Amino acid sequence: MAESKSKSKQLHLTAFMRPVSLHTGAWRYPGAYADANFNLAHLKTFIRKLEEGKFDAFFMADHLAVLNMPVEALKRSHTVTSFEPFTLLSALSQVTERIGLAATASTTYDEPYHIARRFASLDHLSGGRAAWNIVTTGNPESAKNFGRDEHVEHADRYRRAREFYDVVTGLWDSFADDAFVRDRDSGVFFDPEKLHVLNHQGPDLKVKGPLNIARPVQGWPVIVQAGQSEPGRQLAAETAEVVFCSPRDRAAARDLYADIKGRARAAGRDPDHLKILPAALVIVADSVDQAKARRLQLDSLVHYDSAIASLSVALGADASGFDPDGPLPVDDIPETNASKTSQQGVIKLAQDEGLTVRQLAQRFGGYSGLAFVGTPESIADEMATWLAEDAADGFTVVFPFVPQGLDDVIDRLVPELQRRGIFRRDYEGTTLREHLGLPRPKNQFFA
Amino acid sequence: MAESKSKSKQLHLTAFMRPVSLHTGAWRYPGAYADANFNLAHLKTFIRKLEEGKFDAFFMADHLAVLNMPVEALKRSHTVTSFEPFTLLSALSQVTERIGLAATASTTYDEPYHIARRFASLDHLSGGRAAWNIVTTGNPESAKNFGRDEHVEHADRYRRAREFYDVVTGLWDSFADDAFVRDRDSGVFFDPEKLHVLNHQGPDLKVKGPLNIARPVQGWPVIVQAGQSEPGRQLAAETAEVVFCSPRDRAAARDLYADIKGRARAAGRDPDHLKILPAALVIVADSVDQAKARRLQLDSLVHYDSAIASLSVALGADASGFDPDGPLPVDDIPETNASKTSQQGVIKLAQDEGLTVRQLAQRFGGYSGLAFVGTPESIADEMATWLAEDAADGFTVVFPFVPQGLDDVIDRLVPELQRRGIFRRDYEGTTLREHLGLPRPKNQFFA
Ligand SMILES: Cc1cc2nc3c(=O)[nH]c(=O)nc-3n(C[C@H](O)[C@H](O)[C@H](O)COP(=O)(O)O)c2cc1C
Ligand SMILES: Cc1cc2nc3c(=O)[nH]c(=O)nc-3n(C[C@H](O)[C@H](O)[C@H](O)COP(=O)(O)O)c2cc1C
Repeated sequence: MAESKSKSKQLHLTAFMRPVSLHTGAWRYPGAYADANFNLAHLKTFIRKLEEGKFDAFFMADHLAVLNMPVEALKRSHTVTSFEPFTLLSALSQVTERIGLAATASTTYDEPYHIARRFASLDHLSGGRAAWNIVTTGNPESAKNFGRDEHVEHADRYRRAREFYDVVTGLWDSFADDAFVRDRDSGVFFDPEKLHVLNHQGPDLKVKGPLNIARPVQGWPVIVQAGQSEPGRQLAAETAEVVFCSPRDRAAARDLYADIKGRARAAGRDPDHLKILPAALVIVADSVDQAKARRLQLDSLVHYDSAIASLSVALGADASGFDPDGPLPVDDIPETNASKTSQQGVIKLAQDEGLTVRQLAQRFGGYSGLAFVGTPESIADEMATWLAEDAADGFTVVFPFVPQGLDDVIDRLVPELQRRGIFRRDYEGTTLREHLGLPRPKNQFFA
Repeated sequence: MAESKSKSKQLHLTAFMRPVSLHTGAWRYPGAYADANFNLAHLKTFIRKLEEGKFDAFFMADHLAVLNMPVEALKRSHTVTSFEPFTLLSALSQVTERIGLAATASTTYDEPYHIARRFASLDHLSGGRAAWNIVTTGNPESAKNFGRDEHVEHADRYRRAREFYDVVTGLWDSFADDAFVRDRDSGVFFDPEKLHVLNHQGPDLKVKGPLNIARPVQGWPVIVQAGQSEPGRQLAAETAEVVFCSPRDRAAARDLYADIKGRARAAGRDPDHLKILPAALVIVADSVDQAKARRLQLDSLVHYDSAIASLSVALGADASGFDPDGPLPVDDIPETNASKTSQQGVIKLAQDEGLTVRQLAQRFGGYSGLAFVGTPESIADEMATWLAEDAADGFTVVFPFVPQGLDDVIDRLVPELQRRGIFRRDYEGTTLREHLGLPRPKNQFFA
């Protein structure tokens, strides 16, 4: 699994930027921009800073509805107003030169012709920097915005997703790379021998083609996948070039890494051409204690009502009667029919970090996924270990608050990673495929 | 119908920029950029030049398939590869400050939640410069790219379009303008009293809402309509703020103008809040003869095979047997069951301009709509007459070739219109609504 170049295995870093912070308290943090998630001037500053830090890509999650929660919790969410990914990334393509631009798009509630076309257009506008995060749409509320009462079933979503991928990639290959001759003298604009009409007819989709746009600069925009279920992993193994995931810890990450790379090999693919980038909250400070204190302060900004609901879900038991300022009453927690692993994880976390019920609740209400909280050196150590142990090929960095949390990563952590020789000092190519070390796909229909 | 300001009635000018020229020979014209329709660097230069000329808007038509023609004709078309409107306009929003950005979007082959969201996002990204050209999709080939064998029926398309408009405008009003309080102390991001859930259920559409983006800067992006049929005109009268049309001549334009403004009045609207902007090819030169010669040269670049097919359609009779270099053999034209008005128009044109069969065919194969061909003075005279006679509120300018044809309009015609006091010397506002003199719609659900 060594890189083709003779240097050590390199980290890839993408920035999770929709929302600008996944932490629900982020907008309240002292000094943070409260409107950062919906302020174009700020977003331009962030993406330029990320490009200065040589990040592989700027990544936008997407939801086809406001978040699925009661209005009392929703009213506290800074994600409720967000830019739509294609429009924002197209705008940002004009204020940057190298950084990749990854948009999430649903295969459940959109049409392959539209999706193929928009990604091709974004790839041309950005000079080959587009990526498509294929999702089947997590939030069931989305269905109601698209004429349905119920979310499409999980298995049906994934079956359509697989076919959708075939149609989109087929449409991208409508024209050979050299189809456009633009011969003024003869008046021939393109060579009709170099046009392929897809004529797709499958169980879920019927799409004639051709696409009305030239083949993307990258051949195909980079394919990203974030599904975690069995069909999600299989889709990733067959199609994805980048996998976003959220493993609990390094051991779980190693298993997932081996599983997905193994599935890719079994599907006849080169596992090096699939990069696994777990999402990780990163909080950088002068000392580990200071970083931990920032995290506790950030967590404390999560409203207790929504926090305690999240803790109850994680425990599989109602936590609303516990003393908020006492320790977790381990003996009083009823047995759960839900996930025992999850309940045990909560108990372990409470004990390891000595958290009160309130702090524990706020952790779950804020951001409870993988986190690197420490100094540039301690975080670089951890990231290097993940990389060396094949637990990851890099990370999808979640910022705690902006701008400071992002600036700290770029100004302090990135130079440390560069000093260790595990992260680029400059971009070597111009396209996102080049940043990620991925080959440009051949056109399926033309040599 | 006087403007509210005490100056004379003002022209509005939008630029038809997808394709950059509607004339099929444009890319072959000497000195023209052959790839202009799909070259971002050129498009940036054009939009900046249009902004220098204080144009109201940059307009993109849209098609959800390659053009509906045999491949022998298609291979000569410079429109076959084009940017997708939302991505291109979002990119261009970052290299301009004032000019409006009008995208065409179909109500037949897209979803109202997606359309509402993208226009809201573009309006925010551009600081209030977005417009939506509502079309029901002209090209029947589009159906085959969206799972259907046949195009949706005309009446069904327009019924859905009307309901689609209600849903989109309802979604834009999901949040009151002042919904986002972002109160760090209390942790309340938005006031839930200022959120409206649409819960739309109609004959064609079921959409719950709310939209996951703040109300657009303009309240609603400007609504544009280009349908010419009876239901098309009615939809325009009820909903449109700008109407694109293609009347044959000034008399036909006056009738259309009176008809649509009358329908708007009957629908309870202020007819001043609906601007009628016919599409017009504009060729500016030092003399009328030189301008006409340029047009003939441009027409001569249209391939004869596709040209003669277009002439046959216009005549309602097969013209392929006629001597290409002789005059139109008027006595040999069989009677037609198709449009007699159209046939008589062709005969009149041939006689008025003394065109050979070839030249006539190339006119129909190139661009046969309304045209202003002359000097800055002669064209300004004509435009002023249209304006004064209530035949138009301005024009959707179609360029003959780029860059020269566009530069001539900005550098020569615009100053002449400004000297006459019928076109702005500078933008007075920042939003497209302000350029067009249109009010900002009130939120339907909040005072
Ligand atoms: C880093 C990351 C980003 C994700 N982004 C999105 C997103 O933007 N939109 C979405 O609907 N789901 C998103 N998901 C959820 C996945 O698409 C998927 O629905 C979820 O992981 C559950 O997996 P499954 O559907 O395969 O069971 C994301 C997941 C991860 C780990
Ligand atoms: C200036 C102008 C621009 C138009 N742009 C488009 C377009 O971009 N996409 C499209 O499908 N139709 C476009 N049309 C066609 C109209 O939407 C409509 O289909 C056509 O005028 C026929 O009218 P009807 O459908 O009401 O009979 C345009 C028409 C005009 C006059």
